[in-house]
Amino acid sequence: MTLDFDLLLSEIRAGHHRSIAKAISLVEKGGGNAEGLIKLLFTFTGEAHLIGITGAPGVGKSTLVDALIKQIRKQGLKVAVLAMDPSSPFSGGAILGDRIRMQEHTLDKGVFIRSMANRGHTGGLALATYDAIRVLEASGFDVVIIETVGVGQSELAIAQTADTTILVLMPAAGDDVQAIKSGIMEIADILVINKADLPGANKTKADIVSNLELVHQEGQWQPPVILAVAPQGEGSEEIWQAAKQHKEFLVEKNLLQERRKAKIKAEISEIVAVKARARFLDRIDDSPESQRLLTRVLARELDTHSAANNLISDLLRASSGTN
Amino acid sequence: MTLDFDLLLSEIRAGHHRSIAKAISLVEKGGGNAEGLIKLLFTFTGEAHLIGITGAPGVGKSTLVDALIKQIRKQGLKVAVLAMDPSSPFSGGAILGDRIRMQEHTLDKGVFIRSMANRGHTGGLALATYDAIRVLEASGFDVVIIETVGVGQSELAIAQTADTTILVLMPAAGDDVQAIKSGIMEIADILVINKADLPGANKTKADIVSNLELVHQEGQWQPPVILAVAPQGEGSEEIWQAAKQHKEFLVEKNLLQERRKAKIKAEISEIVAVKARARFLDRIDDSPESQRLLTRVLARELDTHSAANNLISDLLRASSGTN
Repeated sequence: MTLDFDLLLSEIRAGHHRSIAKAISLVEKGGGNAEGLIKLLFTFTGEAHLIGITGAPGVGKSTLVDALIKQIRKQGLKVAVLAMDPSSPFSGGAILGDRIRMQEHTLDKGVFIRSMANRGHTGGLALATYDAIRVLEASGFDVVIIETVGVGQSELAIAQTADTTILVLMPAAGDDVQAIKSGIMEIADILVINKADLPGANKTKADIVSNLELVHQEGQWQPPVILAVAPQGEGSEEIWQAAKQHKEFLVEKNLLQERRKAKIKAEISEIVAVKARARFLDRIDDSPESQRLLTRVLARELDTHSAANNLISDLLRASSGTN
Repeated sequence: MTLDFDLLLSEIRAGHHRSIAKAISLVEKGGGNAEGLIKLLFTFTGEAHLIGITGAPGVGKSTLVDALIKQIRKQGLKVAVLAMDPSSPFSGGAILGDRIRMQEHTLDKGVFIRSMANRGHTGGLALATYDAIRVLEASGFDVVIIETVGVGQSELAIAQTADTTILVLMPAAGDDVQAIKSGIMEIADILVINKADLPGANKTKADIVSNLELVHQEGQWQPPVILAVAPQGEGSEEIWQAAKQHKEFLVEKNLLQERRKAKIKAEISEIVAVKARARFLDRIDDSPESQRLLTRVLARELDTHSAANNLISDLLRASSGTN
């Protein structure tokens, strides 16, 4: 069955959920069809506010996202959620979570939720996610939320592709707060202390605020620290206001394009890396030279790095011949 | 300060902990020094039993590893642990956990524990870990345990680099068991149900055993399912025996080299991918052509995949000219 790209594109542009889901499945598979589709719809991207939400497992990100969806819908804006679920190789969580969460918003055409499971080869998830974001942008969603567990490298990279990154924490006691601080400053535009009805929320907030003040520089964005109790929706309006203010700040200071340039550079370098790996894997199985190198590494006659360097030279020679 | 590689190698070979730590820091940094060192010591690798231990956060992997260390030491074998801590960008967990765990074994020269934090660029952790495993193999450790949280892609890839992979679970109730099953079969050589003093342990075990029997094929390894209570050391002897039996099975069936060949192929392809990305990033900043492509993508005149393809061609042309 050949794909009618023009039909698919017009359906995506019209916001048909089934076509959007189909397009995301297509980019998850990767390959020529995915590239063809992205090429076609890329011109319609770049308008959505990309919001990354990240944090350790168990801090209540999903419930917080649901509360945010309600805030965003109140304003009549359309919102899509891409939820990374890196635990799925073990828990099957993506599919289960999807089903439960989709039910709640199933009748609302202004909300689209999709989990992306962490299967397939390394690098695949990041690429599929970048492309899935393009699909959602082209579908006319005003806000695209990318929810990640934020523990793995690729998950972190995905969170950082956003215009606005929200880090979700929980009230912590004693030493934990100290430990939390180290990584915060670099990635978070907004900090949320969720489950703020637990003990220690105010102290955690005070600690983080004073720490943020230490590193704050004149003219830079000052990340707000917001207390939330997601199941009751507490804090969600404040978070949404802060996200909008952050994007306005980026636009006013001419930082939005600068940020996006850095992100697109990272994205393209990721694509280059994945393509280079794929070219290598294509070649290794039917190249006698590659097999010989592998055998020598296995016999410990040659080290892995030297083998990789040899293979890259080999690859470059072959490519420049056929290019 | 220039590095005396020969001195470092002889100290590594003699099992000096400070030199091993220094070498691992070197491979974490990557680059020429790391490659030079790996080249030198690669011939001394391949003898250790590589055991991967993975599982979701909170199942008690670290305590289980500590119990295993005691079993392995009882036999007079030397054991090293590489603990991936992907939560560290937020929690700083790697360093803290390291300190606590090192103290217990600090006077035992036959035990080496090192946490590898999940910092640096994507792909970096996997490469650093592969190389750190080489350092530990060359140091004469009989067993190298690679402990990962097993939620991110790169962590999973690292766990799968082992000869024997142990998946740690907890007693689960109802639907959870069903969900757990899906991903188990492919990666686990040994299944451990830790915290077996919690309710549901026997049912979880029975469910997993019956599920494993369904997919078991004659002549294949039958993954044992072991109940454990790590803080009391319960189950740790059985786990260690199972790990040894698994390696014997691989050797008897001539599967060990076959497995290692597949793993080394994956490892080299990872190195190729990382090197390709690095070459690209080196070029993009001072190549006017690359900058022009980036600007066009940012203006949505060109899509990311087409830009990546252009850049790869550009890279191949440049490389084949200078090679």
